[in-house]
Amino acid sequence: MYTVQYLEDFTREVFIKMGCSEQDAITATDVFIAAELRGLSSHGMIRIKDYFQLWQAKRINVKPNIKIVHESPSTAVVDGDGGIGMIPASFAMNLAIKKAEKAGSGWVSVRNSNHFGIAGYYAMMALEKDMIGMSMTNANPLVAPTFSLSRLLGTNPIAVAIPAGKRNPFIADFSTTPIARGKLAVSAKKGEKVPYGYVQDKEGNPSDDPDILKEGGSMLTLGGDYEHGSHKGYCMSAIVDIFSAVLSGANFGPFVPPSVAYLPVLEKKVGVGTGHFFGAMRIDAFQPADAFKSKMDEWIDTFKNGKVVPGQEEILIPGELERRKEEKIRKEGISVILPIAMELKEIADFLKIDFEIL
Amino acid sequence: MYTVQYLEDFTREVFIKMGCSEQDAITATDVFIAAELRGLSSHGMIRIKDYFQLWQAKRINVKPNIKIVHESPSTAVVDGDGGIGMIPASFAMNLAIKKAEKAGSGWVSVRNSNHFGIAGYYAMMALEKDMIGMSMTNANPLVAPTFSLSRLLGTNPIAVAIPAGKRNPFIADFSTTPIARGKLAVSAKKGEKVPYGYVQDKEGNPSDDPDILKEGGSMLTLGGDYEHGSHKGYCMSAIVDIFSAVLSGANFGPFVPPSVAYLPVLEKKVGVGTGHFFGAMRIDAFQPADAFKSKMDEWIDTFKNGKVVPGQEEILIPGELERRKEEKIRKEGISVILPIAMELKEIADFLKIDFEIL
Repeated sequence: MYTVQYLEDFTREVFIKMGCSEQDAITATDVFIAAELRGLSSHGMIRIKDYFQLWQAKRINVKPNIKIVHESPSTAVVDGDGGIGMIPASFAMNLAIKKAEKAGSGWVSVRNSNHFGIAGYYAMMALEKDMIGMSMTNANPLVAPTFSLSRLLGTNPIAVAIPAGKRNPFIADFSTTPIARGKLAVSAKKGEKVPYGYVQDKEGNPSDDPDILKEGGSMLTLGGDYEHGSHKGYCMSAIVDIFSAVLSGANFGPFVPPSVAYLPVLEKKVGVGTGHFFGAMRIDAFQPADAFKSKMDEWIDTFKNGKVVPGQEEILIPGELERRKEEKIRKEGISVILPIAMELKEIADFLKIDFEIL
Repeated sequence: MYTVQYLEDFTREVFIKMGCSEQDAITATDVFIAAELRGLSSHGMIRIKDYFQLWQAKRINVKPNIKIVHESPSTAVVDGDGGIGMIPASFAMNLAIKKAEKAGSGWVSVRNSNHFGIAGYYAMMALEKDMIGMSMTNANPLVAPTFSLSRLLGTNPIAVAIPAGKRNPFIADFSTTPIARGKLAVSAKKGEKVPYGYVQDKEGNPSDDPDILKEGGSMLTLGGDYEHGSHKGYCMSAIVDIFSAVLSGANFGPFVPPSVAYLPVLEKKVGVGTGHFFGAMRIDAFQPADAFKSKMDEWIDTFKNGKVVPGQEEILIPGELERRKEEKIRKEGISVILPIAMELKEIADFLKIDFEIL
């Protein structure tokens, strides 16, 4: 177990050594640590190596000059100048919030960025302003739409954070596939098989191999097969791709620049970098915030009081499980499995900083 | 087979006889016919009876006084005054478009409405303005969130319409369940079983009975079970519910007033009527519309040119199948199965208008 502080200091040092400003290193670190705290280790320390490799390959700009390239009272397009995803993403979400303060809502599409970590982090930035926050991004092309063998989409997550009153906020943060790609990576590292319905092989046959993506296989969209609504998961993933990339001028679909080493960098570009999309809606642009928040409490209580399927413990509110994990992890520390710790040690050695394998 | 014109005239007459203004009757009819044309018979003539019964039960206002009750430059809340869902919904979508013209985007939450037909209809209203349109609604509480026996949500559809250039627009319109409720109703009318993964019985056991909802069973969310991401379908459905009802002050979740006779009308209210949510984003609030539309053509071509799973014909673009059905139905006419035609005949007799069973 590592203390939160230890991994925070380490991660910040990694980004500083890569050449980030201290402020940018703090921002990026904050997103990594938020992932670990919420129990999303698939988006935590395991991903440091991806950024490190992108940096080594000179595919990431550690001193980005982020710019607003187009705007209206409630919308904007931001160019991330090839920065580490968390930096343009935080800039853009803050801009969405600022627009919402004046216009009631703010919607910002981002191009020329990179993988931004957990989508929920940005959506949650809206909560303290009494706003609803939204965040989405396109991602590595590893997902096949319904009836496709080609990997035309990413796991394209959507996050929505909604403030409540006495209850904790509603925080949904989900990929538009049955599971996040990072969870396949975790299963692969542990040498475990995955349930059928997550991936197909390169011929379109069902597979339980979490490493099948490295052999031309693909992830399936939420729903799994057509009969069970995979075309709806495909729709959602496509909407995320279009809002994030076609609206902003980033690379869409199969052209998203890969953040994993086993995917080739394509010659063909249809835009610049990876795309994201952020939204903020001021609650009191619809109704008084206090009235809304106490209604949200009532909504949450209604769902918590539903009748539970025999053998299950409870009906969960989106974000509830992650919040409990955070309380536990803050107390007990962050667990990093050995293969990941060894990767981090290699990176530390390269950058000449300390990292201890526990 | 009925001609489109015949059913259009009939439907308009039904609403006029129920007391709607001619304009409102035309609007409502337009949505019903659009459903039939797009091959969504689950939302077409089969639903006339629901509205007729609500009208008989005096649960629908045929002369609504629709009002904006709160607004900001890019947002509003509309009170539908208990109108037939299509009427407040069209009003609200037009308002979202008007706000987008000035502010770049427009977002309207609606309370005190009723079932509005197909979500796609309203999203598509934005297309001719070179805007992206969005539409969602809460619905009859028949869906159980992950681990719940209680029916706390509706099939809560989401529609997103995105303009293209030379290609046809991208039109996604999907419930946040593996299938739409109306499709269960169609299977039940035909006496067919449904695949496992759509519904559970009142004890939470898997079921293939499309009529199980009448015996306390529930629909499952997109994903089917927890292992395959049903909690993501639950998140989406919950977001639709909160945007449509908590933001507007409509009834949320299990309190949504039922549009089907086999669900009881609850004494307890947590708001007024059914809720919807609409959005419009002006393309040129992000980038020049022509550049965007030719990029959308490229997006569509990329997906059409993907490699197809052996045994399947093609990768479909959202909306493509429905457009083909529309072309065919416009030529060949609308098929209405006998049990539905007999219902329509009863309604026609009651209202003293003509309807022929073909």
